[in-house]
Amino acid sequence: MEWISHSRILIVGLGLIGGSYARGLKRLGFHVSAIEKRQSAVDYALENHIIDDGYTTVEPEIVSSADAVIFALYPEVFRQWIAEYQQLFKPGAMITDVTGVKSCIVYDIQNMLRDDVEFIASHPMAGREVYGVENSDDAIFRGANFIVVPTEKNTAEGIRWIGSLGRILGFGRISVLSPEEHDEMIGYLSQLTHCIAVALMTCSDNEHLVDYTGDSFRDLTRIANINDLMWSELFMLNRESLLKYMDIFLDEFAALRDMIRDGRVDELREKMRLSTKRRAYFNK
Amino acid sequence: MEWISHSRILIVGLGLIGGSYARGLKRLGFHVSAIEKRQSAVDYALENHIIDDGYTTVEPEIVSSADAVIFALYPEVFRQWIAEYQQLFKPGAMITDVTGVKSCIVYDIQNMLRDDVEFIASHPMAGREVYGVENSDDAIFRGANFIVVPTEKNTAEGIRWIGSLGRILGFGRISVLSPEEHDEMIGYLSQLTHCIAVALMTCSDNEHLVDYTGDSFRDLTRIANINDLMWSELFMLNRESLLKYMDIFLDEFAALRDMIRDGRVDELREKMRLSTKRRAYFNK
Repeated sequence: MEWISHSRILIVGLGLIGGSYARGLKRLGFHVSAIEKRQSAVDYALENHIIDDGYTTVEPEIVSSADAVIFALYPEVFRQWIAEYQQLFKPGAMITDVTGVKSCIVYDIQNMLRDDVEFIASHPMAGREVYGVENSDDAIFRGANFIVVPTEKNTAEGIRWIGSLGRILGFGRISVLSPEEHDEMIGYLSQLTHCIAVALMTCSDNEHLVDYTGDSFRDLTRIANINDLMWSELFMLNRESLLKYMDIFLDEFAALRDMIRDGRVDELREKMRLSTKRRAYFNK
Repeated sequence: MEWISHSRILIVGLGLIGGSYARGLKRLGFHVSAIEKRQSAVDYALENHIIDDGYTTVEPEIVSSADAVIFALYPEVFRQWIAEYQQLFKPGAMITDVTGVKSCIVYDIQNMLRDDVEFIASHPMAGREVYGVENSDDAIFRGANFIVVPTEKNTAEGIRWIGSLGRILGFGRISVLSPEEHDEMIGYLSQLTHCIAVALMTCSDNEHLVDYTGDSFRDLTRIANINDLMWSELFMLNRESLLKYMDIFLDEFAALRDMIRDGRVDELREKMRLSTKRRAYFNK
């Protein structure tokens, strides 16, 4: 499927990311339908012209008329949806997702999927600490990273197609990782950081700290405002990579603690210089 | 001393914070002098009209003509400066600082100081991960927190004076803490967060992660770009409070790790909801 403007797109799950995809794709001239169980989200999206049409149940004719289907669901719900409704897909339809974990679902879904449709996984690195279509905004994609996660089952055409989706939505850098590489990366860059923010936030119950804080604590705890249902599921589905990085971090942090406790200032400064040097990679 | 516009202010140490004070005070009409050992910083400040006059050595007549002196030095350098040059202060001069640790220096300095001048400690919570007068900007104070740190040696007039300084520079909330309360608070909100950022940054040496990351990792590691000389000194001078919070954090983080490892999802979600609730205090 080429990205031509008479393509019909179906978005399943109209939260922050699904809603932001809808906004961006509708702005580009695509016909955008949505299936979302929350009636108020569908109403909001229709009233604000984020979608062309929306449904709270799986309408067969809407699924079977879509050239492309984007799933923005929690991982387990996504898997169940495919198992239950995949017979409705139009032959030749392209399917992608936005799921934050990959190896635990991509192979399963590709293995159960019909041969005449293609599922190519992707992950827009554009989460926010707010939720729902009411907070959606396709500006969050501008300059952000977009990860394409193909397997051996994917076609060159499918990989080109998903790269185009990332480009037309305004993402900055589009990279390709295997499901295993993706999950390892996400265990460190995203899941570990969320664990750290939660642990930092729960160290003190002093309600007055807001009167004294600078920006660094605010920055480190922005994501401590966390959707417990979504993130606990993501953590459990990527437990191995996450635990690996939690243990690496525990070792690094405990080493730093020991340097401070023992007054080993030279080693402490060496560690800070290493940190500064590595952070510079992220200034690009 | 009242804050009248013909007051002469001396700033000792023209880095990011000293330079930002200079900009704000000069904008308000004060006569601002600076003593700063780096010639290029003095030159920059003069060329950019950040100060009225500047010196790389301690000029007696500049110190003795100042109605107020603001020290923006590293803690140990500040202490040595007072020991060596305090005889130069004008009788009745008001003295403050911007130092990030308090109990280890405030009492010492007040004990050694002449009786006819007053040192009232304060801490502008407006650090940045950039350094030097070249990056100074008094807009960093707008809405930020300002902590006044008096002891029993301070006068009501001194406490009023320093509160006025915070207000005229544009700080949002001005609070009063004892040196011990200040250091406990800073151990958690500022020093622990810097330790976390450094440890997180040093968990991986993969230079390509920038292509995959979202905003959360960037936020948590912004301060991993760290001045190793300044922060190692601050850590050592506040070792007790910092180590206390490092151990609390280690316990919280390890508990989270165990919940994930053991699949105790209900407890994990409970912890995330607590984190979300506590983070809400910081949205004010």
